[in-house]
Amino acid sequence: MVPRQVWKRAGELGMLNATTPEAYGGLGLDRRFSMIAVEEVARAGLSGLNGFNVHDICAGYLINFGTEEQKQQWLPKMASGDIISAVAMTEPDTGSDLQAVKTRAVLDGDDYVINGAKTFISNGTNSDIIVVIAKTGSTGKGSRDISLILVEADRAGVTKSKPLRKVGLHAQDTTMLFFQDVRVPKANVLGGEPGQGFYQLMKELAWERLSIGILAIAASQAVLEQTIAYTRERKAFGTPIIEFQNSRFKLADLKTEIVLGQTYTDRCMELILQHELSPEAAAAAKLWCTELYSKVVDQCVQLHGGNGYMLEYPVARHYLDSRVNRIYGGANDIMRELVARTL
Amino acid sequence: MVPRQVWKRAGELGMLNATTPEAYGGLGLDRRFSMIAVEEVARAGLSGLNGFNVHDICAGYLINFGTEEQKQQWLPKMASGDIISAVAMTEPDTGSDLQAVKTRAVLDGDDYVINGAKTFISNGTNSDIIVVIAKTGSTGKGSRDISLILVEADRAGVTKSKPLRKVGLHAQDTTMLFFQDVRVPKANVLGGEPGQGFYQLMKELAWERLSIGILAIAASQAVLEQTIAYTRERKAFGTPIIEFQNSRFKLADLKTEIVLGQTYTDRCMELILQHELSPEAAAAAKLWCTELYSKVVDQCVQLHGGNGYMLEYPVARHYLDSRVNRIYGGANDIMRELVARTL
Amino acid sequence: MVPRQVWKRAGELGMLNATTPEAYGGLGLDRRFSMIAVEEVARAGLSGLNGFNVHDICAGYLINFGTEEQKQQWLPKMASGDIISAVAMTEPDTGSDLQAVKTRAVLDGDDYVINGAKTFISNGTNSDIIVVIAKTGSTGKGSRDISLILVEADRAGVTKSKPLRKVGLHAQDTTMLFFQDVRVPKANVLGGEPGQGFYQLMKELAWERLSIGILAIAASQAVLEQTIAYTRERKAFGTPIIEFQNSRFKLADLKTEIVLGQTYTDRCMELILQHELSPEAAAAAKLWCTELYSKVVDQCVQLHGGNGYMLEYPVARHYLDSRVNRIYGGANDIMRELVARTL
Amino acid sequence: MVPRQVWKRAGELGMLNATTPEAYGGLGLDRRFSMIAVEEVARAGLSGLNGFNVHDICAGYLINFGTEEQKQQWLPKMASGDIISAVAMTEPDTGSDLQAVKTRAVLDGDDYVINGAKTFISNGTNSDIIVVIAKTGSTGKGSRDISLILVEADRAGVTKSKPLRKVGLHAQDTTMLFFQDVRVPKANVLGGEPGQGFYQLMKELAWERLSIGILAIAASQAVLEQTIAYTRERKAFGTPIIEFQNSRFKLADLKTEIVLGQTYTDRCMELILQHELSPEAAAAAKLWCTELYSKVVDQCVQLHGGNGYMLEYPVARHYLDSRVNRIYGGANDIMRELVARTL
Repeated sequence: MVPRQVWKRAGELGMLNATTPEAYGGLGLDRRFSMIAVEEVARAGLSGLNGFNVHDICAGYLINFGTEEQKQQWLPKMASGDIISAVAMTEPDTGSDLQAVKTRAVLDGDDYVINGAKTFISNGTNSDIIVVIAKTGSTGKGSRDISLILVEADRAGVTKSKPLRKVGLHAQDTTMLFFQDVRVPKANVLGGEPGQGFYQLMKELAWERLSIGILAIAASQAVLEQTIAYTRERKAFGTPIIEFQNSRFKLADLKTEIVLGQTYTDRCMELILQHELSPEAAAAAKLWCTELYSKVVDQCVQLHGGNGYMLEYPVARHYLDSRVNRIYGGANDIMRELVARTL
Repeated sequence: MVPRQVWKRAGELGMLNATTPEAYGGLGLDRRFSMIAVEEVARAGLSGLNGFNVHDICAGYLINFGTEEQKQQWLPKMASGDIISAVAMTEPDTGSDLQAVKTRAVLDGDDYVINGAKTFISNGTNSDIIVVIAKTGSTGKGSRDISLILVEADRAGVTKSKPLRKVGLHAQDTTMLFFQDVRVPKANVLGGEPGQGFYQLMKELAWERLSIGILAIAASQAVLEQTIAYTRERKAFGTPIIEFQNSRFKLADLKTEIVLGQTYTDRCMELILQHELSPEAAAAAKLWCTELYSKVVDQCVQLHGGNGYMLEYPVARHYLDSRVNRIYGGANDIMRELVARTL
Repeated sequence: MVPRQVWKRAGELGMLNATTPEAYGGLGLDRRFSMIAVEEVARAGLSGLNGFNVHDICAGYLINFGTEEQKQQWLPKMASGDIISAVAMTEPDTGSDLQAVKTRAVLDGDDYVINGAKTFISNGTNSDIIVVIAKTGSTGKGSRDISLILVEADRAGVTKSKPLRKVGLHAQDTTMLFFQDVRVPKANVLGGEPGQGFYQLMKELAWERLSIGILAIAASQAVLEQTIAYTRERKAFGTPIIEFQNSRFKLADLKTEIVLGQTYTDRCMELILQHELSPEAAAAAKLWCTELYSKVVDQCVQLHGGNGYMLEYPVARHYLDSRVNRIYGGANDIMRELVARTL
Repeated sequence: MVPRQVWKRAGELGMLNATTPEAYGGLGLDRRFSMIAVEEVARAGLSGLNGFNVHDICAGYLINFGTEEQKQQWLPKMASGDIISAVAMTEPDTGSDLQAVKTRAVLDGDDYVINGAKTFISNGTNSDIIVVIAKTGSTGKGSRDISLILVEADRAGVTKSKPLRKVGLHAQDTTMLFFQDVRVPKANVLGGEPGQGFYQLMKELAWERLSIGILAIAASQAVLEQTIAYTRERKAFGTPIIEFQNSRFKLADLKTEIVLGQTYTDRCMELILQHELSPEAAAAAKLWCTELYSKVVDQCVQLHGGNGYMLEYPVARHYLDSRVNRIYGGANDIMRELVARTL
C-alpha cells in the first residue's frame, strides 16, 4: 500500500489536485495537468499511485459542487496530501446501477444517519474523507433521490474491511466500507442541497471515464515501447524477434490503434476544456481505450515468450493491472449502453 | 460506367479538381474540398464516382510537380471534365512493389519509348491522359530509376482491355492498359526531369491513402445510419431489432469505432494542410479505416437479415464495394509494413 | 439459373434424393450421401447447385413424415429430377420467427384455402411442388398452430416473383412466392394431420443446419487449397507469397480452424445417423462453420491481392456466395439463441 | 508449493504415471487415464497439480525410450510419488529453438560432463530426476546432436534457483536449473544411445501438446459452468445477468467453441491411442484450445463484473493461470509454424 509519506511528498510536489484553485491551496491549473499526472503514472507502471487520480476526482466534486465552507475545509488538506479521499459508489450487490443503490441517508434532526455497504473503494484503507453516494429521497426518480455526502472516516460507525485481494493493482489500496448508523451533519451534503447527486455524478463521471481512457493509452504506449525494446534485443532462431514479419505486423497494428486512441483522447481533452465533452464521448473513450489496453498487453505478453509470464518484466504486471480498467469506472457494457442511447 | 456527360457536369459544378489553382481553371481551394467530395460520394453510395478522386489525385501530381507547360496543357481540361485522367502504377505481376516495375521508358532521340502492361487502372476505359509509372533508369536504386510520364491515351501503341469483372464497384471503370512501343516526347516526363518518380509518388501517396481512409469512414457512417434506420423500423419477435441488446451493443461498438476513425482522419487532414502528414500516419489511416469499413458492413449486413443479401438494400452494395479498399492504394499489409518501419 | 436438364441429368446420376427409399425411386442410402453431395458441390464452387440440397431437404420431409400416398405421388419424380421442390418458410416481415407466420390455411370443405407471401425461396422459379409453412390453427400455441402443406406450383393463385437480385449465388434461383386464395385438398397436409408442422420442422431443421455447416467447411477447405496454390505461385518482392510469415501464420490458423470444423461436423454426422443430433449441436455447427467460412474467405481474398476482387478468381465468387450462409437456415443469432437455451 | 506428501498420496491413489506398465509399479493403463487426470485437475482449478502432468510426461520418455535398467531404476519410485521428475528443455536465451540449445554434455571417460542453464522448469525445486536436453554432438545437424540425459538432482554441480515469480500458477514450482561440470555416467543417456534426443522429443511432444489442449478445454468448461452459475444468481438492473441477450450470446459462443474444442481433442485422443496423432494435429489442438481458454476467461471475467478481479472467485485465478498455456509447451507461434509446414 502506498504509504502516507508518499502522499505528503506528492502534495509538496504539486501532484495532487493541481486543478484546485490557488485560493484553496492548489495550483489553479486545468485538467491537462491531471491528464499529465495520469499519463506519467501509467507510463511508469506505478499503478499503486492510481489512487492519486481518485483523489483528484474527489477534489473535482468539491471544486465544482462544494459549498464555500466545504471547499475551505477539505481542499487545502487534500492538495497537501494531509488527508486522503475516496469515492464510495459501488455496492456489493448492485454494480454500476445507480437506481439500485441501497445505502440510505435519513435526516434526523440536523444530521443524516447513514447505513449501507460499499465495495471496490480505491484509497479505502487510507481514506480520511469519503464521498458517499446515498439515497436521501424516496421519490422513485433516481435523479432526485441520490445525494453525495462527505463522510469523515473517523465518524462512529464507519468500518473498513481488510484490503481486497485483487488480480493486480497490488499496491493500490482497495477495500469495502461499511456504514452503520453513521451520523454526519446536514452540511456535509455536497453542495449543501440533497438530491443533486445524480447530476453531480453525471458531470464528473465524464472526466473519470476519460481519465481511465487516458491511463489506458499511456499504459499501452509504455507496454508497446517496452516490447519494441525487448523484441529488438531478444533473438529467436538467431534473428531479433522484432524482425519477424508476424512481430512487425502485430506491433504495427498495435501502434496504429494506440495512435488512434491517443488522437481521440486528445480530442476529448480539448472538449473537456471547453466543457463540451458529452457522456457518450467519454464512455466511448473509456470503452475503446481500455479494450485496446487489454489487447496490447495480451499480444505483448506473447511477444515476450516465457518472460511475459514473469513478474520481473513490466508487461507481466500490466497483465495483472490492466484487466480491471474494463470493469471499474462503469463496466464496458455500461459504456456500450451509454453510446447506444445516442444511436 | 459513368458517362462522360456526368464528368462534364461535375466539372461545371466545380467538383473536379477544386484544388487546381484558379490560373489553371480550378477553384484554388485546399484539400478539405477534396475531402468533402470524397465524403459526399461515399455517403451517397455512388461508388461509380470514385473515379473523381483518382482524377483529383492525378491533378495533384500536375499541380505539385508539373512543369508550367504541363499544367497549362492539362489542368484546365481536367478541371472542366473535358478530359479524364488515370494513374497507371500496378502491374499484373508485381502488385505494390515499386522496385519490381517492369514497364520501361527508353530514351530514343527526343522521345521516350514505353513498353509494359498495367492493371487495375481506375478510369481506364475513359482515360484521356495517363500518369504512367515507368522505369527510365537502370541504376538499381529504385528511388532514381522511376519516373512518372504523362501518356495521352490516343498515342499509337496504347491499348485498353475490356473493363475488368469485379466483385463490386460495378459502375467504376477499371481496366488493364498495354503500352507497346508507345512514343511520347521527353517533355511528357512529369516535372521535366526523369528519376523523380519515387519521390513524387511518396509525396502524393500519403494523400491518396488518407483519401481512402476518409472514404471508408464516410461510407461506414452512412451504413451505420442506414442500419440504425432499418433496425428501428424492422421487427423480430414483435420487437424492433434495434431494441435487442445484441443489436444495441454491436451498433454502439461500431459507432464508437467510427467516431475514433473520424477523429483520426480529421486530425490527419489538419496535418496535411500543414504539410506534415507522415507516410506512416497516412498508412495508419488507410489501414485502420478500411478494416473498420469491412467490419461495419459485415455486421450491418447481419443486422439486415436476409435483406442484407439483396442488392436493393444499400448495405448489400457496400458489401460488394467495400472489400477492395483494403487492397487498393497499397494493400493493408503494405500499410502495416510502412507503420512497422517506424517502430 | 440452373436449367431443368441439369436437374434431369442429376436425377439420372442419382445425385438427387439418394436417401429416398428404393421403393420410391431413390437409392435408399443414408445421409452420408447427402453430405458428400453437399461437399462436392461446395468444393467445386457450383453454388447454383445448392438447390439440390434444398430439394433433398424437401424429400426428407416427405420421407420422414409423408403419408404413403404423398410419398408415392412425389418422391419418384423428385428423385428423377422431373419435378423440383422448394420449402416456403420465411415471410417478408417475419424472418426466422415461426410464431409470427402470417400465411394462413383455412379449412373450407375438403380444401385448405391459403393466403400469404413468402420470400427468399430457393428453387422458387423452377419449383413444381412447394412445402408451405402455414398457420392452420389459432390456439395461440405455436407448436400446434403450424402445418406444412404441399402446394403444387400450378395451383390457381400461386404467383412467383422475378428472381431476387442477390449479392451472390447468381446461378441459384431465389424468389418470392405469393398465395392468393390457393385451394389445395386437405390431403395435401404433410403427414395427413394438421398441427404437426412445428414438430416436423424441428426434426428436419437439424439436418438442414448441419448441411449448411458441412457446405461451409467444404467450401472453406476449397478456398484454402486454392489460396495455398495461388500464394505458392505468386510472388511479392521476389518471394512467393506463401513464404511470408504473415501468410504462413494466417493460413495455419485457417487450416487449424477448418480441421476443427471438419472434425465437429463429422461427429455431428455420426450423431445424425444415430438419430441423436440435438438441435443445439446442429445450431452450433451451422453457427461456427459459417462464421469460419466468412473468415476464411475474407483472409484468402486479402492473400490474393487485387485478384481477390476479380470475379475470374474462385475466391472472389466465394466472397459473394459465402455471406448468406450466416443468414439463411436461421440467422446465426437464432443459432446463438438455440445454444443459449441449453446453458 | 505442492508439498511432497501430496505427491506421495497421489502415488498411493494411482494418480501418478498410471500409464506406467505394472511391471514397473504402474497401473498399465493407456493415456485416457492421463487425459482424465489432466481434466480433473483443470476442472478443479488446482493448477498447482499441473506438475503431475509434467511428471507423467517424464515417465512417458522412460516408458517409451528408456533402457530396461533406466525403467527399473526410476519408474517405480516415480509411480509411487517418492521421486519427482522434471524436463529441462528451455534455456534462458533460446526459447523453443532446439537447434540453439547451448547446454553441452561432453564425454569424458565413461561420464558425460554437463554445463548449461535451463529455465521455466516445472517441478524444478522438488525435482529428484531431471530429463536434460543437451547437445552431445557437433555435427551441425540438430537431429543428431541432441540427447536427453537423466540427471539426478543431487549430483554435484546441479543448482536450483529460487522459485520464479510468475503471473499465476502460484502453487506450481517453477525454477531455473544450473549445471556446472555435472558428471553423470554414460548410461544415463535416455535409451542408452546419444543422438536420439530430437526423435524422442518429437514423439513425446505431441502428447505434451495435446495434454495442454485437454487442460485448456477442461478449464474452459469449468470457467463456463462457474460463470453460468454466477450470472444466474447475480442481478443487474433487477434482472439475472444471464438473461441479458449480450450475456446469453457470449456464453453461447463460448459453449459452441468449447464443444468444438472438446470434440477435436477427443478425436486426437483416439488418434494417439492408435499411434497416429501427427505433430501438426497436436500443435493445432494446443494452439486452438489454449487461445480459446484465454478468450473464455477474458469474457467470463467481464461477466463477473468487479468480482472477476477478486481472487476469491475462481475465474480470477483462471485469469492468472490461463495465460501461460499459450506460451509453454512450445509458444503458439511455434504451433502455427508446425501447422504451416504442412500447408
